[in-house]
Amino acid sequence: MSVKKMILDVDTGVDDAMAITYAIADPNVELIGVLSSYGNIEANRAAVNALRVLHLLHADQVPVFIGNTDPVDHKYQRIDINAQIHGENGIGDVDLEPATHDFESQNGVDFMIEAAEKYGKDLTIVATGPMTNIAAAIKKNHDVMKQVNNITIMGGALTVPGNVTPVAEANIEQDPVAANEMFTSDLNINMVGLDVTLRTLLTKAETKQWRATNTEAGQKMADIVDYYIDVYADIYPELGGCSLHDPLAVGVAIDPSFVTMLHLNIMVTTEHDAYYARTIADKARLNDPDTNVNVAVNVDKERYLQEFMNLFLNLFNNLNK
Amino acid sequence: MSVKKMILDVDTGVDDAMAITYAIADPNVELIGVLSSYGNIEANRAAVNALRVLHLLHADQVPVFIGNTDPVDHKYQRIDINAQIHGENGIGDVDLEPATHDFESQNGVDFMIEAAEKYGKDLTIVATGPMTNIAAAIKKNHDVMKQVNNITIMGGALTVPGNVTPVAEANIEQDPVAANEMFTSDLNINMVGLDVTLRTLLTKAETKQWRATNTEAGQKMADIVDYYIDVYADIYPELGGCSLHDPLAVGVAIDPSFVTMLHLNIMVTTEHDAYYARTIADKARLNDPDTNVNVAVNVDKERYLQEFMNLFLNLFNNLNK
Repeated sequence: MSVKKMILDVDTGVDDAMAITYAIADPNVELIGVLSSYGNIEANRAAVNALRVLHLLHADQVPVFIGNTDPVDHKYQRIDINAQIHGENGIGDVDLEPATHDFESQNGVDFMIEAAEKYGKDLTIVATGPMTNIAAAIKKNHDVMKQVNNITIMGGALTVPGNVTPVAEANIEQDPVAANEMFTSDLNINMVGLDVTLRTLLTKAETKQWRATNTEAGQKMADIVDYYIDVYADIYPELGGCSLHDPLAVGVAIDPSFVTMLHLNIMVTTEHDAYYARTIADKARLNDPDTNVNVAVNVDKERYLQEFMNLFLNLFNNLNK
Repeated sequence: MSVKKMILDVDTGVDDAMAITYAIADPNVELIGVLSSYGNIEANRAAVNALRVLHLLHADQVPVFIGNTDPVDHKYQRIDINAQIHGENGIGDVDLEPATHDFESQNGVDFMIEAAEKYGKDLTIVATGPMTNIAAAIKKNHDVMKQVNNITIMGGALTVPGNVTPVAEANIEQDPVAANEMFTSDLNINMVGLDVTLRTLLTKAETKQWRATNTEAGQKMADIVDYYIDVYADIYPELGGCSLHDPLAVGVAIDPSFVTMLHLNIMVTTEHDAYYARTIADKARLNDPDTNVNVAVNVDKERYLQEFMNLFLNLFNNLNK
């Protein structure tokens, strides 16, 4: 496997912090930049969190950019559930040491377009927040973005209920208009939604192994994720762990064989009714021979969790050397 | 392939008439009985239609039974769209010659349980109306019904919008309580829903071939189905044909390799809200290693349509000999 140049578009977020860690940990990835989106928390704080997580992982060389800070058709407002799940500061109310530098002044959307121009089909984009930045980049320079053939997102729910409403998943619900623009474009999108992320679960048995590395990174990440595991135990006791939403998207971007894909044309409901922000097959394009969305509908959770743990433990142990 | 003993549970209906024809046409099937349900039309008329279709196909030996005539929790009322799609008489307002005998006096649910007791795993049940009769049979004798390991239904919509509401498919919407009882039982169910039936389309190019057999059966079936094709052209012009909903379920019951299956635990929303009658993965059982529903999510439409046409043309031609 050749090393993949990757951009992460995150709203850091506990599971975004794990997504960043996964990308840093995997030797098959060169993380060329992090875009800060809004969602779990507002964009500025998400950027600060991304910088601090990178600093914790000795990866200060990765530049952090701020993308668009609001959805296409309304203003961002943090919803209570996000403070509950991710903590007031977005990363489980754990204090991380400030990074040694600030985020870049260039707009994140422009950075993404420039990278697409430079690397084309060798670029991998993973978005684990709303689809605002990707939709903006497509609108600004469709032809360049079209060259990127690995855009993998965490978002949506096709075969399972949503987590905001019975049909809406949180990342899509933040900006359904952008998500619909992205899905109904002709770009190839890998959709890693609740269909699979509700099946990849982490427990304190695993974070305990991070602590046992006796490393700063292992211990701080365990603190952050334990906060999240505790909230999951309260809100979703039936799951028996916390969902690895965002890091699963990174894993699938690197190795799609973790999941089974369904090839479909997807649309998002943007009407303000009970079906708002639903991801569903576009009936009008159901019989098109061409499809542009690969929806992950099943996951080899054992193999993924093993890879996830190997990468995290290796990273933490190596940071200490 | 050994000959399958099959019961069809139908609400005849144009596509139910095609489902009956498919079962009669396939040499791998011995149709041991037809249960008349309600839905496209009330149960008594559905039984009359089933008898007449069987008579048209020289299959008067197949007994027709009437099952339950109302949903579990309310009274049946025919909705306007069913008269529009299937015609006032349920079979495209085509007059078929009356059968030489009447339907049986035994209740259809009891007939199904008796057959399950007699044939067990060698019995195939295909339901193309509401799930009322199957749910009643499970309630009355779960252990006997559990022996039947091929129950294939036309119903539901998992990855595509519904045809009654954005989430509800017509057969499920007729009796969501029964459908939920069936799906959340431990019986194995093959779900052939709109996900695949909206992709298997018939046009007048095909019914013209039936007419060209110069047989009574070919011509009458073409009259019935042309009515349906015309309505589809009005209501769903984007499809470019009529959906082979019910006959696809029969085809899949005989040869599951026509479709790609997703293995899930399914539930049906029975609350009277916007999500009424939705078929969706049961979140509480998402991580159960055991699943009991195989949801068809993709179909080899070319191969299915070819088999469908071969069977129909052979049947019509042979009837004339």
